[in-house]
Amino acid sequence: MKNYKITIEYDGTFFNGWQVQTKNLRTVQGEIQKALKIIFKRNVLLIGSGRTDKGVHALGQTAHFKAETQMPTDEILRALNANLPDDIAIVQIKKVSENFHAQYNAKSKTYRYTLLNRATPSPQARLFYFFYPYSLNLSLMKKEAKHLLGKHDFKSFQSKDPSRPERGKDTIRTILSLNIKKKKGFIIIDLTANGFLYKMARTIVGTLIDIGRGKLPSGTIKKLLKEKNRAQASPTAQAKGLCLLKVEY
Amino acid sequence: MKNYKITIEYDGTFFNGWQVQTKNLRTVQGEIQKALKIIFKRNVLLIGSGRTDKGVHALGQTAHFKAETQMPTDEILRALNANLPDDIAIVQIKKVSENFHAQYNAKSKTYRYTLLNRATPSPQARLFYFFYPYSLNLSLMKKEAKHLLGKHDFKSFQSKDPSRPERGKDTIRTILSLNIKKKKGFIIIDLTANGFLYKMARTIVGTLIDIGRGKLPSGTIKKLLKEKNRAQASPTAQAKGLCLLKVEY
Repeated sequence: MKNYKITIEYDGTFFNGWQVQTKNLRTVQGEIQKALKIIFKRNVLLIGSGRTDKGVHALGQTAHFKAETQMPTDEILRALNANLPDDIAIVQIKKVSENFHAQYNAKSKTYRYTLLNRATPSPQARLFYFFYPYSLNLSLMKKEAKHLLGKHDFKSFQSKDPSRPERGKDTIRTILSLNIKKKKGFIIIDLTANGFLYKMARTIVGTLIDIGRGKLPSGTIKKLLKEKNRAQASPTAQAKGLCLLKVEY
Repeated sequence: MKNYKITIEYDGTFFNGWQVQTKNLRTVQGEIQKALKIIFKRNVLLIGSGRTDKGVHALGQTAHFKAETQMPTDEILRALNANLPDDIAIVQIKKVSENFHAQYNAKSKTYRYTLLNRATPSPQARLFYFFYPYSLNLSLMKKEAKHLLGKHDFKSFQSKDPSRPERGKDTIRTILSLNIKKKKGFIIIDLTANGFLYKMARTIVGTLIDIGRGKLPSGTIKKLLKEKNRAQASPTAQAKGLCLLKVEY
């Protein structure tokens, strides 16, 4: 059996997230597995670096699958893209060692959150940002965000959903970098961490927005990290603004 | 009566072009006139800088309309956007002198044509490029494109459609700049001219692609400008790759 690592771009708008579900919902993993089945004439399990939620996008999601085949990799790439809907594309394929695992071997992930922070919407980018036309104190957001860097217990920033598997488990993660920049009306927040709790990126962004608009005082991030209480943080920011940029191994 | 100039962004995918048509088709002008009617409670004529074709996009289309109103301009802007579908937005509004005319006063226009020139498609940008995964000689395209600069008779690059009003009229235009650059797999062709014949931008791009892929020899542009025969030029490039960037006054 050969082992392949693929890098995937998708527009998450019309997907019920990454992961195949018991209900007959359209998912990214499901669509790629359908294409793999067409090419290899049998069921192929595709293992992603992790889930992305309903509506979340990716430019560099990664996954691996095993197949017994003589096809050259660029032929597999072409065949996969020819059998995928136009909101998913495999942008890279690589033969990797037998024991490479897209989830367990991931060292870090980078997510990008995009806000449109101007008076008017942008039709051409409308599926990929959260529209926030009100004033935001960007320098305060940047200052507060610095406290997130490093190794912390991110319990305050996990999902409120008690059924998620991380509940009761280790909620310690390390944020390796967090950059906020403004470009032509867009505020772009790039977050790199060794791992993310479910909804952690969007809860961090939601909290930073509340800080930027003056709803929460400076010192909030420090307090949340200390108190480890999800109820204190802000609502998660909209899924459509979030994009998985890359996964590092 | 007050006269207003507006700047419009749209995703042209789901429009039958700019101009209102006799048939009941969805057009950009039609949708904005509907919003104007809601706000001003009467029919308002919107005059664009020119038409864009079915499927062509805009980041900076311009238009003007007249209205008898006391509403501040940013309130008109907000009201318009609140009454427009999400694939159109008014990104700027300005009160202008009574005799400003969006079409007659336009000095130049800039169009951008976007090709994706890599092996794999890009789902997030899929509505905004022409996918050309084959090899292109970019330096040859740039060299040939230089011959388009300046004042020429562009008869060879006009539409083949004999019913268009320009037929038999003046086909002399001045191309003020033409830049071709490659960025992350995308080839971006920016064209500025004092005016464009119907389908001129897309016929130029189609011809440059045929030069880049070696179907037409170097010297083609010079020859086409001299021969003034549309039948010699290449097919027009796909509408979805074209975007009206700005109109200068």
